[in-house]
Amino acid sequence: MNPVKIGLLGLGTVGGGTATVLKRNAEEISRRVGRDIVVSHVATLDLDRVDELGLNHGIKATQEAADVVNDPDIDIVVELIGGYSPAKELVLQAIENGKHIVTANKALIAMHGNEIFAKAQEKGVMVAFEAAVAGGIPIIKAMREGLSANHIEWLAGIINGTGNFILTEMRDKGRDFADVLAEAQALGYAEADPTFDIEGIDAAHKLSILSSLAYGIPLQFDKTYTEGISNITPEDVEYASELGYRIKHLGIARRTTQGIEQRVHPTMIPERRLIANVDGVMNAVLVQGDAVGPTLYYGAGAGDEPTASAVVADIIDVARALTADPNNRVPHLAFQPDLLADTPILPMSNIQTAFYLRICAEDKPGVLAEMTKILGDRNISIEAIIQKEPNDDKATIIMLTHIVREGDMDDAIETLEALDIVCGKITRIRVESLG
Amino acid sequence: MNPVKIGLLGLGTVGGGTATVLKRNAEEISRRVGRDIVVSHVATLDLDRVDELGLNHGIKATQEAADVVNDPDIDIVVELIGGYSPAKELVLQAIENGKHIVTANKALIAMHGNEIFAKAQEKGVMVAFEAAVAGGIPIIKAMREGLSANHIEWLAGIINGTGNFILTEMRDKGRDFADVLAEAQALGYAEADPTFDIEGIDAAHKLSILSSLAYGIPLQFDKTYTEGISNITPEDVEYASELGYRIKHLGIARRTTQGIEQRVHPTMIPERRLIANVDGVMNAVLVQGDAVGPTLYYGAGAGDEPTASAVVADIIDVARALTADPNNRVPHLAFQPDLLADTPILPMSNIQTAFYLRICAEDKPGVLAEMTKILGDRNISIEAIIQKEPNDDKATIIMLTHIVREGDMDDAIETLEALDIVCGKITRIRVESLG
Repeated sequence: MNPVKIGLLGLGTVGGGTATVLKRNAEEISRRVGRDIVVSHVATLDLDRVDELGLNHGIKATQEAADVVNDPDIDIVVELIGGYSPAKELVLQAIENGKHIVTANKALIAMHGNEIFAKAQEKGVMVAFEAAVAGGIPIIKAMREGLSANHIEWLAGIINGTGNFILTEMRDKGRDFADVLAEAQALGYAEADPTFDIEGIDAAHKLSILSSLAYGIPLQFDKTYTEGISNITPEDVEYASELGYRIKHLGIARRTTQGIEQRVHPTMIPERRLIANVDGVMNAVLVQGDAVGPTLYYGAGAGDEPTASAVVADIIDVARALTADPNNRVPHLAFQPDLLADTPILPMSNIQTAFYLRICAEDKPGVLAEMTKILGDRNISIEAIIQKEPNDDKATIIMLTHIVREGDMDDAIETLEALDIVCGKITRIRVESLG
Repeated sequence: MNPVKIGLLGLGTVGGGTATVLKRNAEEISRRVGRDIVVSHVATLDLDRVDELGLNHGIKATQEAADVVNDPDIDIVVELIGGYSPAKELVLQAIENGKHIVTANKALIAMHGNEIFAKAQEKGVMVAFEAAVAGGIPIIKAMREGLSANHIEWLAGIINGTGNFILTEMRDKGRDFADVLAEAQALGYAEADPTFDIEGIDAAHKLSILSSLAYGIPLQFDKTYTEGISNITPEDVEYASELGYRIKHLGIARRTTQGIEQRVHPTMIPERRLIANVDGVMNAVLVQGDAVGPTLYYGAGAGDEPTASAVVADIIDVARALTADPNNRVPHLAFQPDLLADTPILPMSNIQTAFYLRICAEDKPGVLAEMTKILGDRNISIEAIIQKEPNDDKATIIMLTHIVREGDMDDAIETLEALDIVCGKITRIRVESLG
């Protein structure tokens, strides 16, 4: 089967990430789709990017986005330029030309989505925009498909990473807003003109999309109440903490009997809520459905590859629809059944983890030395030892090890348990950093 | 267009939830699918359930599951009996009869999924099983579609609510395992025979499904290392806390250069991780992709309506595939474009939230009385007041209000700011419990 051919508009941060991910994971992606996906035409003002990204094997490159949009070989146009214009005109022309569209452009969808979707419907093409909200978190798929059984009562999202980074730093370090903003700009988390991020406009773009998905209403960005975080002071952050709250910049949509609330503003939320503990540049969306109750989706809301993760997932969605009959659109086990792998599942002896050990031992000199020698002989190094106060001449010894082979630990424990100075079985619990 | 006709096998907890959600949200579901979905035939040993659930409008009911499986009117057979047999035989017969399948049965999929999927492929029908892992959390959709761009490095899930409830109680209250298990049984969180939950078999069913989705390998439940939580003691829970860790019963799948780790066991994880703070009966799955980084999915892993949320989402997925051409399978804004609503977006004056107020005021007698009267006159009641030590005869007063109409608060603030005793602007931050 012919590959699906992609035309990329823009090779900036997200465009570069998209090209990189499509290339690095090409083999797995083909196994998922049952067909290759290739980037065959790119538009970029900086043509050097094509070489930088290692894309120059027969790829067409242009500085004119219209060349890609009008290329008859292209199946899917991926719009990663951002902003309202010329993105809007390019997308509409691509649809007119019968191309499917994937875009990460929240401003475009929030402002012109109604028009773009109507045109796509008329021309029978798909428009996918998972990357437009919360970067790599598949929240649009969750709202449109995963939670489709539910009447959505409300949703609340941390959907701007720059704002969340600033509020997190203000709380953790007691710093003031302007100071942290300057640092965020230096780190590249905030734009030179940070207005869209800190005044909530970016979050309002995303919230208006989520609200429409939740309530089945046309996109109405202009009716979103939007209040930024630039007036939040260190005092307010501190008083919030004293009261058991955190201040987060939330986008909230809620259905009431009178209508729909659609609002972005700083919000105090109880610190025990999971979403109150989403810190730094991370995003999260909490959705309350009438059947499912609360569900939360957490991940990176921006950045080259996290955003590319959503862009490429959309490309795969479209490619699957172009490739398989509807009944086989998504393979049962995510990969095509004739392309499953025979990668072995490892026996536990080959697993590597750190360990917590609780050992009951005689409380006398030399015991620790004897035990640590047995561990050391098996390449098991110790991160921490705590000896609890002895009871009836027995001491409880707690050890945390570094990462070791489970087989070595099995052997060490068997040897330790055979010692006279060790009383009874040793308790072991595997330790994972999950970092 | 004719409605999609559902045959339900089982009207227990999840079957009842499914019937209830389909009925309660029928109007929204039709707007999402573009077509009605009706339960037209149910199999249940307890025929009284049909009346109890209010399903008796022309519905066919039987005690013989085969009647539903062989009913030529049925488009989708929803298997909610659970267990290996006769669920397996019924599902295979339904596939043979050309029915699409939706199931919540993790044991069935983990043990017999390879055979069932092969048969479905041969007969050209869909088999959907979102509810089989982590209840209402759309984790299968996230793994198969949302994260499809990624090479999955590892995943770790709290995928058994009973076990998590027990471990949470042990930590919060210092109770021991047997004691909490007995309570969980009394509360209905744990089965009379709790083996599947506490010994990790249920989690291993689910993990083997997630691992196959992550790595494109056949289902291999029998190769999953499975260790339960019945040996965890209050001492270990306490020592873990001292060391900055929490003990969670995790299912972990990880790819290494030698193969795939697939293991369920108690695990100590750093308490600062979001997943370490997933407590009680809630589930969460943390997935590390090479492009997206860490993403986390949180929600209820069991219960009638949370599980039904996933079952009904699968029914909608199948119904959408049977209804629309592939390009229009999922509407852009989740609901059919000709069925969008004109529900109004509310002006902020009609929004209701609680408020945090920070007020600078003269430090003299009667000030608080004057301010609280202004608030009270506008139906604004106070939950807490904190007066900070005065500085230069100015005091900082912090107030938390109960939920009020924003318009009333606007009016109160304007009135307060006009007082001579109030210095400068009043800071207000909206407060949301998100509970």
